[in-house]
Amino acid sequence: MNEKLKGVNLGGWLVLENWMTPNLFDGVVAEDEYYLAQDLEKKVYEARMETHRNEFITEADFIRLAQAKVNIVRIPVPYFIFGDRPPFIGCVAHLDRAFNWAKAYGIKVLIDLHTVPNSQNGFDNGGISGVCKWGQDEAEVEFVLSVLTRLAQRYRDHAALWGIELVNEPITEKMWGVMKPLERYQARDPKLAQGSRPLTMAFLQDFYCKAYQQLREILLPDTWIVFHDAFELHAWKEFFAKNNFSQVMLDTHQYLMIAEMDGTEQNIGAYLAYLDQLGKEIAEVACYIPVFVGEWSLFNSYAAGTDTKGGINPTQEEFTATNRLSSAALIEVYQTLWQKSVATWNIGEGHMYWTYKLNIDTINDPAWYGWDSWDFSRCLAKGWID
Amino acid sequence: MNEKLKGVNLGGWLVLENWMTPNLFDGVVAEDEYYLAQDLEKKVYEARMETHRNEFITEADFIRLAQAKVNIVRIPVPYFIFGDRPPFIGCVAHLDRAFNWAKAYGIKVLIDLHTVPNSQNGFDNGGISGVCKWGQDEAEVEFVLSVLTRLAQRYRDHAALWGIELVNEPITEKMWGVMKPLERYQARDPKLAQGSRPLTMAFLQDFYCKAYQQLREILLPDTWIVFHDAFELHAWKEFFAKNNFSQVMLDTHQYLMIAEMDGTEQNIGAYLAYLDQLGKEIAEVACYIPVFVGEWSLFNSYAAGTDTKGGINPTQEEFTATNRLSSAALIEVYQTLWQKSVATWNIGEGHMYWTYKLNIDTINDPAWYGWDSWDFSRCLAKGWID
Repeated sequence: MNEKLKGVNLGGWLVLENWMTPNLFDGVVAEDEYYLAQDLEKKVYEARMETHRNEFITEADFIRLAQAKVNIVRIPVPYFIFGDRPPFIGCVAHLDRAFNWAKAYGIKVLIDLHTVPNSQNGFDNGGISGVCKWGQDEAEVEFVLSVLTRLAQRYRDHAALWGIELVNEPITEKMWGVMKPLERYQARDPKLAQGSRPLTMAFLQDFYCKAYQQLREILLPDTWIVFHDAFELHAWKEFFAKNNFSQVMLDTHQYLMIAEMDGTEQNIGAYLAYLDQLGKEIAEVACYIPVFVGEWSLFNSYAAGTDTKGGINPTQEEFTATNRLSSAALIEVYQTLWQKSVATWNIGEGHMYWTYKLNIDTINDPAWYGWDSWDFSRCLAKGWID
Repeated sequence: MNEKLKGVNLGGWLVLENWMTPNLFDGVVAEDEYYLAQDLEKKVYEARMETHRNEFITEADFIRLAQAKVNIVRIPVPYFIFGDRPPFIGCVAHLDRAFNWAKAYGIKVLIDLHTVPNSQNGFDNGGISGVCKWGQDEAEVEFVLSVLTRLAQRYRDHAALWGIELVNEPITEKMWGVMKPLERYQARDPKLAQGSRPLTMAFLQDFYCKAYQQLREILLPDTWIVFHDAFELHAWKEFFAKNNFSQVMLDTHQYLMIAEMDGTEQNIGAYLAYLDQLGKEIAEVACYIPVFVGEWSLFNSYAAGTDTKGGINPTQEEFTATNRLSSAALIEVYQTLWQKSVATWNIGEGHMYWTYKLNIDTINDPAWYGWDSWDFSRCLAKGWID
């Protein structure tokens, strides 16, 4: 594929996040997938998961993606994809089907290992909120290598396979301090959370090297192996200079929401300036490693009409309709940001939106107003992107 | 609404049909919604139903429908919508949400009472296959009147309400002989099926009059009350002349598949000739009662590449890829039929496609090839319609 990556994440499908599909968490206190499996009776858990997996993403979505000229999907998968980690239910049969849809409709697949046992980041999207201990457990590191190996073996010859991303958003010391996962995501079991700490860059680079070696032997030469930058876009120059990797790409995630947390002001001018700056940084990195933006979103406080820095779970209390933009103004704001973002990401290898769809309801639950811009399919239908 | 109805049915959502969402019937022998509730453990049944109802149709679908300039949805609902017929689970909260989505995105709603206890037609879509006894049970006729009354009371003042259809596809003697429901849909419990027979036209007209009177008193003057023609488009002239109805429309369902069963040849010329003939019939009926086509589909044997008269559940055995058309030829065939059909239906008041979406997989289950034309959302994405 020589063209730029125009991609979208199939988030919320095989890896759950409470805010993306709140209906799956109805009636339980669980805030993440780990506790969902504990809080629901086994049969109910299975029935919800199976129905969700069968209905949330279907062939029809791939038809729509092809129509929108999306050329790649990044598919987050959990470490229990092969069904060998009860009580969690495997989902590799669903990934198989997605590969066949992708092939039929001319779309490539990046498999993204989105969770690991006891988490690589402590986020809810790591599978268990407020816990970050994976890297300290050698057996679980080995387990994750075996999952990656099995994924590589299973799909190596599939025409739709574009690449495998070794682990999503591992967190190192630097971002641990900025993103404060243990504050933002409270652990339900303080004992289990005990000893949580960021990964070291040394551990992460060692893991990447090991995983790279194992996968490179299995995968075809033109299949990409993707390293997430651990939120440190500029930390990798020496590492790539030192290692002689073949067909490796760097994935960096760039959210306006995070930029706001870092101090970017909540207006269009500030967003564009932030993107300008990022474009320069991407250009710099692209000199020594192909880089793409594997997650990003148009979501921002200005368009949402409310300061969203508090987190991704709005409550009625926070919500105010007073700052709502008109439909026409929203189109203009989002289109402006879309065009500028895409142009910026295409200084590198391209981009993948987070996320394809959300099951939120902005009409009956108006607190979700504005959060619909996380939903690529709605952005398309509303004319916010193209 | 003075423009023609450009509508679509939200089939397979609140009323299930096995072939439309086969995933919900995984692991059970049930072929219809009645036995699904019996074959699944209560909690599993509830979990599947809730997840399906929460995910199959969402706000995002209404955004897409508005984008496609659909101005009305016909929503099939079951007789147990209010949750007073265990073991079936009510779903009026879902209908409430859909009404609000419809209002927000400028779409009207026709509520279609799609099933009644012990069925009005013996079809799988009547809720229980091979049974047709509703009309013989006075208490159940009263129950259905109470459901209609409650629906009218609940939504009478909702800005999205366009009309209420009293009962879907009731079957009288004439079509009983043509469609042979008891042969096509085997009853699982022969004892329960015993005594099944078509409705009489006299019963049906009496039911329509009673329901009309009750609903007309509740509904606003410009809200439509819809009578299904019981597959007898021309049987109603005298009835409408005799009765002084206000704001009543006749719904007729016109499928190429049924035309084929009636002898229409499986080629485009024959389909167009059939539509020409239908246009004349609709024009004739429209002289004495406003009439619309509340269900229809582009699905046909020619485009499917296989004789589909056998029914709506293809098996691998029946399937052959030899007659497949190219993508371009498919677009031409479907667009030709779409344009002609829409023009024909617009001789009356307009049309509503069956159905908005299906959860079938033509790639991993190639036996479904061709059946995707039942899916309005795919037809749109594939450029078969506009």
